[in-house]
Amino acid sequence: MQQYDLISVLERVSELVTPSKERREKVEGLLRESLFKVESIIKDMGINAEVVPVGSVARDTWLPDDIDIDIFILLSRDFPEDKLGSIAVEVARRAFGSYTLRYSEHPYASCRVDDIDIEIVPAYKIMKGEKIVSSADRTPLHNNYLMGKLNSNLRKDIRILKAFAKSIGVYGAEVKVEGFSGYLLELLILFYGDFISLVRNAADWRPPVFIDIERIASKGEALKKFDSPLIVIDPVDPNRNVASPLSKTQFFRFVAACRALLNKPTEEMFRSRKEISFTPSRIKKELLERGTDIIVLLVEDLDLPPDTLWTQAKYISKRIRYVLEENGFRVLWCAGHTDEKSTVAVAAELESMEIPKALIREGPPVASQGERDFLIKHISDKNTLSGPYIEGDRWYVVKRRRFFNAADLISDYLSGKNAPKLVRGRKVRIVTGNEIGKVPEEIRNFIGKNLLRKEVFTEMLV
Amino acid sequence: MQQYDLISVLERVSELVTPSKERREKVEGLLRESLFKVESIIKDMGINAEVVPVGSVARDTWLPDDIDIDIFILLSRDFPEDKLGSIAVEVARRAFGSYTLRYSEHPYASCRVDDIDIEIVPAYKIMKGEKIVSSADRTPLHNNYLMGKLNSNLRKDIRILKAFAKSIGVYGAEVKVEGFSGYLLELLILFYGDFISLVRNAADWRPPVFIDIERIASKGEALKKFDSPLIVIDPVDPNRNVASPLSKTQFFRFVAACRALLNKPTEEMFRSRKEISFTPSRIKKELLERGTDIIVLLVEDLDLPPDTLWTQAKYISKRIRYVLEENGFRVLWCAGHTDEKSTVAVAAELESMEIPKALIREGPPVASQGERDFLIKHISDKNTLSGPYIEGDRWYVVKRRRFFNAADLISDYLSGKNAPKLVRGRKVRIVTGNEIGKVPEEIRNFIGKNLLRKEVFTEMLV
Repeated sequence: MQQYDLISVLERVSELVTPSKERREKVEGLLRESLFKVESIIKDMGINAEVVPVGSVARDTWLPDDIDIDIFILLSRDFPEDKLGSIAVEVARRAFGSYTLRYSEHPYASCRVDDIDIEIVPAYKIMKGEKIVSSADRTPLHNNYLMGKLNSNLRKDIRILKAFAKSIGVYGAEVKVEGFSGYLLELLILFYGDFISLVRNAADWRPPVFIDIERIASKGEALKKFDSPLIVIDPVDPNRNVASPLSKTQFFRFVAACRALLNKPTEEMFRSRKEISFTPSRIKKELLERGTDIIVLLVEDLDLPPDTLWTQAKYISKRIRYVLEENGFRVLWCAGHTDEKSTVAVAAELESMEIPKALIREGPPVASQGERDFLIKHISDKNTLSGPYIEGDRWYVVKRRRFFNAADLISDYLSGKNAPKLVRGRKVRIVTGNEIGKVPEEIRNFIGKNLLRKEVFTEMLV
Repeated sequence: MQQYDLISVLERVSELVTPSKERREKVEGLLRESLFKVESIIKDMGINAEVVPVGSVARDTWLPDDIDIDIFILLSRDFPEDKLGSIAVEVARRAFGSYTLRYSEHPYASCRVDDIDIEIVPAYKIMKGEKIVSSADRTPLHNNYLMGKLNSNLRKDIRILKAFAKSIGVYGAEVKVEGFSGYLLELLILFYGDFISLVRNAADWRPPVFIDIERIASKGEALKKFDSPLIVIDPVDPNRNVASPLSKTQFFRFVAACRALLNKPTEEMFRSRKEISFTPSRIKKELLERGTDIIVLLVEDLDLPPDTLWTQAKYISKRIRYVLEENGFRVLWCAGHTDEKSTVAVAAELESMEIPKALIREGPPVASQGERDFLIKHISDKNTLSGPYIEGDRWYVVKRRRFFNAADLISDYLSGKNAPKLVRGRKVRIVTGNEIGKVPEEIRNFIGKNLLRKEVFTEMLV
């Protein structure tokens, strides 16, 4: 019965995730057209390069509502690295008019035609086993590998899996998501044969999970080398774990979602979810209801690539959480966000913005080595409120906290010598709950989402 | 040099703690007189009993400012236990007029002549090795043992040690103090030979310390049997640890004080300390300065022996601390007190009286046995503020606390089915910091002492 349910759900989902004939014609037409343009321009520029389509459009594994046309310009290894950017720019400008120059490890150009993103990525042409310069160089090898394996059934299940991963929020290897790349999802379908088998297996995944489709790596060595919940050996490079960007949280979210799907199959688990919008008054109402407070840091006017902004947002959020907790604040959550353009935001929900001024500090055991230093330090310190006294076998002292207001603490931290590099010498806005209106809408929505954080599939697990 | 210092300090202290000729004459006269009276009355009552002086006055180890004359009426084992009280009462009334009937394990009568306490204690006469009915029966054996060992040098050092123990707050085996009984201190001087040797040795004590003056017990068995930092085998009973009432805190306080004395010898360490008096406004000022709050429970109109009141005060304080901490309140200290007459008080200093309404609860690992129950419990609970969500390999949920005000929590606890027996069906007053004027002076002083808690010898350790 349950089996039947899941199968009928997947049948309906399959229709949902398969591009319509018109859509397919449009996208494939645009791909052919773009390839032709790029090839002509490259030839015209007198550059010796191969132009290849890669990614989900090239492999026919794309989702109707999430289209990226990736065109790689493969150059020989003697092409100067510092000119990769100018090639991308020139090709993009001449082929599509407007473009945005972006960076991951290498520069690339991003263009938009109607609602479709086209990316022009210069890379070095390598053969399997050859050393890469940037990880983009490996992409054409991935493409070749998959093109030699995929068939229409696998493509159908890859689309279903991508929709599933997207719906539960684990699709994407970028720092923002720390989830499953498209390539990784395609490999998983390849390995397990179909979506249902993958889901059944993943429901029982316990880290570390080791998958080596081509049997080219040693499991023992891989477990030593990769500290990941999921290890999927790259078929084109035995030294690479395709799942290395996957966080523990996203791994377990996927496992739990697979169990939820098996338990109560529903199309809901494959639908894109709309971002909820939070007005300032809604956030204030939530905070009042929860009896908590919120502190937001805004680092603005930045000019960095999205992945760098995300890395900074997450790094700073970890530091801020540490500083808050070290100083006695109780943090419900602390998370980073970026608009991927110029702003990094870190927000933390605190049990309260102010904590009591006094705290007990546990000292060393009586008559231990550290006793003298502890006593000297605290006996006549002006922030000693009482003690030192003995309780059980240890010394204790009651101290006045240096910071009892979170905003003061964060201000001090950000202007101090341990501040994250990104904020040094930069003005950081610190905003608290009742000033939430001063925070840009996107950041507000990020905060609201964290306030109401809940796994979308929770009800399907019970 | 330091050696010399300590010796000259002890010489001066010795004068301080030795009773003057007049005092000695008065106390010894009173003892002789009391013994004579009690013996006559016993004879007159037609009771077959031996009247013996015991305790520090009998052994000439008393401190000038702390005098207890203990007179034991030793009865044969066939004397009915339920008549011990009436003997004590009758003897006390006829000998001294007024008296107070008290209880430890047996009833006894307490009388006062001028500034001297006289205690009339009925007990059973036993021989070494015989079974006792109450621990008072053992006291005459202790007295006999010590009388056979003491000389004037030992007596001098016992007085010095008692003054030291009293000054640092470890003198007394009663529940209030959980420290060293007079008998224990006398045995320690006997074992180490003199005060300085005891102090030098105790400075290096690490639990468990095993002392068996008469070599009558097995160390291995004693360590198994007694879970105490200090084990001193009773010379009159190898199965008894004289130091069993000693708490870990008092053990380490004594060790630290010995180290302090060796480090910076001063007469101060042998002087009685005055109780400090705290007005309500002083306590309020302290709390303001510390940024903390205080909650006091008063159980009044009780009629129980002092040791029972202390036991209850300490027991309830442990329960209250547990309940507060279990519910998220941060407790700087929680302590019990009693006026030894009719009131038990428990006070706790809290970082704050109110804590935030929301808290994160860690749930079971994803896909573990407990997952389903956890999710069912929290998914639609009205106190779930957000979640369940996954972080790392676990589920979490943000809950609304049931209690965010300490006074509400304590009220609920005291009227619930887990309340300590003493308070059941009894009205308990709950007082907070700004109503501190409603608390009796003695309890206020106890609170003030805890607020300013500090080992008196801290400065002498560094």
